[in-house]
Amino acid sequence: MSNKFAITIDDVRDAARILKGELARTPCLAAPKLSALTGADIVVKYETMHATGSFKERGAIVKLASLSAEERGRGVIAMSAGNHAQAVAYHAGRLGVPATIVMPDGTPLVKIENTRGYGARVILHGETLAESQTEARRIAAEEELVFVHPYDDARIMAGQGTIALEMLDEHPDLDALVIPLGGGGLGAGNAIAAKAVKPDIEIVGVEAESFASFDNAMHHRERPIGGATLAEGIAVKNVGALTLPVVQKLFSDIICVNETEIEDAINIFATYQRVMAEGAGATGLAAVLAQKERFARRKVGLILCGGNIDARMLASIMVRALERADRIVSFRVTTSDRPGILGKIATRVGELGANILEVSHGRLFIDVPAKGVSLDLTVETRDAAHARELLETLANEGYSPARLDPRGLGPVD
Amino acid sequence: MSNKFAITIDDVRDAARILKGELARTPCLAAPKLSALTGADIVVKYETMHATGSFKERGAIVKLASLSAEERGRGVIAMSAGNHAQAVAYHAGRLGVPATIVMPDGTPLVKIENTRGYGARVILHGETLAESQTEARRIAAEEELVFVHPYDDARIMAGQGTIALEMLDEHPDLDALVIPLGGGGLGAGNAIAAKAVKPDIEIVGVEAESFASFDNAMHHRERPIGGATLAEGIAVKNVGALTLPVVQKLFSDIICVNETEIEDAINIFATYQRVMAEGAGATGLAAVLAQKERFARRKVGLILCGGNIDARMLASIMVRALERADRIVSFRVTTSDRPGILGKIATRVGELGANILEVSHGRLFIDVPAKGVSLDLTVETRDAAHARELLETLANEGYSPARLDPRGLGPVD
Repeated sequence: MSNKFAITIDDVRDAARILKGELARTPCLAAPKLSALTGADIVVKYETMHATGSFKERGAIVKLASLSAEERGRGVIAMSAGNHAQAVAYHAGRLGVPATIVMPDGTPLVKIENTRGYGARVILHGETLAESQTEARRIAAEEELVFVHPYDDARIMAGQGTIALEMLDEHPDLDALVIPLGGGGLGAGNAIAAKAVKPDIEIVGVEAESFASFDNAMHHRERPIGGATLAEGIAVKNVGALTLPVVQKLFSDIICVNETEIEDAINIFATYQRVMAEGAGATGLAAVLAQKERFARRKVGLILCGGNIDARMLASIMVRALERADRIVSFRVTTSDRPGILGKIATRVGELGANILEVSHGRLFIDVPAKGVSLDLTVETRDAAHARELLETLANEGYSPARLDPRGLGPVD
Repeated sequence: MSNKFAITIDDVRDAARILKGELARTPCLAAPKLSALTGADIVVKYETMHATGSFKERGAIVKLASLSAEERGRGVIAMSAGNHAQAVAYHAGRLGVPATIVMPDGTPLVKIENTRGYGARVILHGETLAESQTEARRIAAEEELVFVHPYDDARIMAGQGTIALEMLDEHPDLDALVIPLGGGGLGAGNAIAAKAVKPDIEIVGVEAESFASFDNAMHHRERPIGGATLAEGIAVKNVGALTLPVVQKLFSDIICVNETEIEDAINIFATYQRVMAEGAGATGLAAVLAQKERFARRKVGLILCGGNIDARMLASIMVRALERADRIVSFRVTTSDRPGILGKIATRVGELGANILEVSHGRLFIDVPAKGVSLDLTVETRDAAHARELLETLANEGYSPARLDPRGLGPVD
């Protein structure tokens, strides 16, 4: 089987030897709470624990180790606004190899600063990743730098595949691996490794619904690709030439997950496992939750491939989850502008056992009757029943509370 | 040495044998980013990775394993609103031992529900932990239940001490361990284990400034104990009778950290290590950051003892950290109520390269001139210099922006 692909299990084993001593082994642990939630026997590989927070360091180190002395002297170049950039910059810096990273215009400054902080030269170029890529290729040719592709490269694929070796070493009884698919480097490397070690293991891919590039390619569909997704790390338009044949041959299926499912999975990793998952990292759990019956009672390995999620994004996801469970409820009371109205309502809310978290009055663009004032309250309740009881009581007492959309966009009813 | 204490290294080794197969080994990993930040060579033991998110499971399992068949049949009782309750309830449920947990009135409903979810009987009693404790002792006597003390118990201490065995097994070259001190079970157990395995290791304790119970006891001080702290897990008024002699004898020092230092450490664990640390769990890192010179260039083990932090609390800490770095800036513009003013300011802010996150107008209790309106804007900037430039430009153009306190409490200048 393997001689038809860009790499074999031997390449992955070589990669594992290269990583030894260069990279701490990441934990791979049973997750009893996720097992209870999904009905499967879940094991999580925490690739969030690398210094730059993603699995990309594996491929980057293996690629850097393959360079000749001359190539190391001239340096490497990569194109990425995300985890690949951080991984290449960090390890090139650590190993004394000059690195250039091309990022699209408009890349958040914190990512640029991080990359520079590892000693890399950062070049901002292009409106899209395609334009940045063209520029990176141009500079690579001009300056004779080694171009480090994020996924369509045999060394990169072999490096990423070491994850499955470690997982099966510690949990040889895994029945299935669920692997996020972007360009397919993670997927192809690990499928080759896992199938070589354990031929009857099932490999399932996951894509964000809006970037179902592999699903399109495998099933000759032409669903549109693009749009905003929480799973930026796997929002890849073009599948790899080296990775596609592996996915086609070794993956049993691809599950597409939507944004709500990804958001829920991010929140579950935070609240149940106390770990930050970026959108792409959470897709494996989202897939198992979306198809519980398929995975029920089987031992399933999830690769939590990265943890680089924006702090504000994570905060809003976690708070929204509480809101969806009606443990945080926002409502508006519109009233004549009597002094003391806030004090009266606040006292009453407290008596009813809820805890006021935020108060604001008026909002732009909202119609408030002349001589009236609107008070928006956000309160913490015990549960949905308590929230209902609170609002009914306030209504009976003449406050006419109107529920607000938890995202703060105005009334919902 | 050890025969003067409640337990010896042999008790800890016995505990380790009991835990084998009952509890997955938690990861203990080098943290290069924390090392770069502190100047020490930092290793973190992730006790957040247990099912209930804290180290308390170790002691609970060892205690449960020590019961006679008759005691197991009658059941156990514990008093706790926090991690000890979850750990005892979870493992008692798993092992089929009836458990009763006494919690103070006013314990957040989510904690009560979690504990009940593990199959425990929950009794709410008492305004303070002391009153709950008295009730728990009363019920224990009346129903002949085994009382599981959170720290002043030889089995509990031995169980917690297995952490140091695992850390020194994987990192025998540790120079120091920094251990959070609440009642002292974690501290005493691990000090005994670590000193037995490696006599020249330094053991340093950490307490929250407002709960410096051990520091008081060791130095015969009488600083007041109490108040609100982020480090709820170590907010303990009474040091243990069994644990105090160990801390007095084996700890070289105790570092007291303040709330700002704890908050910073929580944020650093989230953003650098992608892991949720509860306040008590983050105190070890806070201590190293507070006394960098003491730990510089030494290999220091941190016990990240728990990860049970409220989602809203973590969210607000992370957002506040961005605000403190001036990557999020809030300011107020007071202007006459012309239509279109928001559009004008929003356009100008965009032209100046900042990103508007939130807008609100008016706030309760703030004086706004008659016929005027105040607009509060929260914007994302590249860094502090960019924030300064933005505000200066708006000032030059007549908008008179006034910085607001990031916590939303009103103007700061």
